[in-house]
Amino acid sequence: MTFIVLARSTARALFSGGRSYHRQFSTAAIARHLENVEATHHHGGSFYYWRKMSSLPEIKDQHHNSSEEKKNEDTTTTNNNNNSVVSSYWGITRPKIQREDGTEWPWNCFMPWDTYRADVSIDVNKHHVPKTFTDKVAFRSVKFLRVLSDLYFKERYGCHAMMLETIAAVPGMVGGMLLHLKSLRKFQHSGGWIKALLEEAENERMHLMTMVELVKPSWHERLLVITAQGVFFNFFFVFYLVSPKAAHRFVGYLEEEAVISYTQHLDAIVSGKVENVPAPAIAIDYWRLPKDATLKDVVTVIRADEAHHRDVNHFASDIHHQGKELKEAPAPIGYH
Amino acid sequence: MTFIVLARSTARALFSGGRSYHRQFSTAAIARHLENVEATHHHGGSFYYWRKMSSLPEIKDQHHNSSEEKKNEDTTTTNNNNNSVVSSYWGITRPKIQREDGTEWPWNCFMPWDTYRADVSIDVNKHHVPKTFTDKVAFRSVKFLRVLSDLYFKERYGCHAMMLETIAAVPGMVGGMLLHLKSLRKFQHSGGWIKALLEEAENERMHLMTMVELVKPSWHERLLVITAQGVFFNFFFVFYLVSPKAAHRFVGYLEEEAVISYTQHLDAIVSGKVENVPAPAIAIDYWRLPKDATLKDVVTVIRADEAHHRDVNHFASDIHHQGKELKEAPAPIGYH
Repeated sequence: MTFIVLARSTARALFSGGRSYHRQFSTAAIARHLENVEATHHHGGSFYYWRKMSSLPEIKDQHHNSSEEKKNEDTTTTNNNNNSVVSSYWGITRPKIQREDGTEWPWNCFMPWDTYRADVSIDVNKHHVPKTFTDKVAFRSVKFLRVLSDLYFKERYGCHAMMLETIAAVPGMVGGMLLHLKSLRKFQHSGGWIKALLEEAENERMHLMTMVELVKPSWHERLLVITAQGVFFNFFFVFYLVSPKAAHRFVGYLEEEAVISYTQHLDAIVSGKVENVPAPAIAIDYWRLPKDATLKDVVTVIRADEAHHRDVNHFASDIHHQGKELKEAPAPIGYH
Repeated sequence: MTFIVLARSTARALFSGGRSYHRQFSTAAIARHLENVEATHHHGGSFYYWRKMSSLPEIKDQHHNSSEEKKNEDTTTTNNNNNSVVSSYWGITRPKIQREDGTEWPWNCFMPWDTYRADVSIDVNKHHVPKTFTDKVAFRSVKFLRVLSDLYFKERYGCHAMMLETIAAVPGMVGGMLLHLKSLRKFQHSGGWIKALLEEAENERMHLMTMVELVKPSWHERLLVITAQGVFFNFFFVFYLVSPKAAHRFVGYLEEEAVISYTQHLDAIVSGKVENVPAPAIAIDYWRLPKDATLKDVVTVIRADEAHHRDVNHFASDIHHQGKELKEAPAPIGYH
């Protein structure tokens, strides 16, 4: 029994309890899969993994940390984490998370296991040729919006990108929410599409969190965002209810425009029009960029993200065009 | 360079590209952390991990799989996955995912790394004593709703649970969405609360997906769900906008009632009033239950989940009661 406690507490000490435990467990599964080892029961499995991964002293050490953590949970005094008084009555304390280099993980909005390296090998020139009437309407309306935004932003690339992301993070959230409610209403599975669309929304929001580090929005831009969100959220909410087929195609084309904008942004950086400043810390952690990464690297990975969202949304629209429901085709979870 | 390709393609062959790559990378980080090995650059890191995890033949093998996968992506023919024609133009194909025992992973709505073992050691009798006026109103209104639902469902526990989950999965989604939009509007971080609330919604939805395997809803129950969702979604949307403090307290008390309901459900199973049927396959995979798990085990883990949501929502309300915003206190991500 002891080793079970050890395995579990090691996980708890590392990341937020259950969460990391899953990862560490599912990795045990990968390990066994690779080595064709018969799966034992779960705890046994994870212990097998930890024995591979850590020498006994470290396990002891982790166990020690974990019992400290337990103490924190039990204590009835308040815990001044991030200068906020947190009622420890609920036993909720932020776990100490470290980077590989031992420094503390500074982000609450994303965890180390949410980070990734964007697949920049994706084709950024891919374009879905409008075929159906729906396609053409979606394409035309996006092109029209493009003209408006170009008129407003001209060559203020950073600002353009920032405003774009406040809008780009809406459709995924609306679509994910509506599919979630539909799944509840109809007692049906989602095929993973809820998660896929919410992932898209979160990824777009992280683009914004990055851009904000580089461009400080002015009061009239803040005002524009509030207005734009109010209009676009309600518009897209109804749009998705009426025709998810058209809505996903529309987003697909929006993402194509985003890719074009970021390509122009890159050209401006290369030509020196835009200064190639160092990448913000949040971007370096989120996309696992080298410490000396620059704006050019950041814009490159963001463009790759947008290209992936383009594919996902055109794909979703294709499924609807084939008269099927999204849940009939497995969703591209974690498609970056 | 070769080994980088190997490491990456190994990941791709195992799970859906990026996603698994994150896990496998972040695990490499854990490994290095445990063994106090200096972190090399990321790919090096993951390679280090794969070298530990797999002998060369397996890497070769995985590489082979991966190049096959690449071929699928490049092909222009359609791929009949799950009887749905998937446009391969977007290079999106569902990766082959296996359980530890080598059998194919049957679920699209959740992946092996989303599964967990519920912490059933949580105190199921914890109750937040109403202090403020807000607390008292929230508590009373939940108690009132409780009376109504008891009148309607009487001792039809399974049915009661199922209907309860269609409602319980709404607040997390609404809260998460509103925080997401707020983060975009105000160019502010969320402290992880968007994710925490969306996790809650998804978890409640999985409860429903489990219950549906056990109880088939009748037409009038379906009708009730559609009406209830229409009313409750809009009510909670406005409620959360007006007072997140009261809204989270309200949900906290809803979850307390859910815990009570599931305790009654358990008693009915133990006393034989409700037959202790085998657990549905989806529950066994999602909560990593033993193959011979029964309804009793399922209700036990679901009750533990509800108790965790109770804590998270009371905690969130406490933060608001202290005149702070949620983002000031790190969110309990993956608190199960």
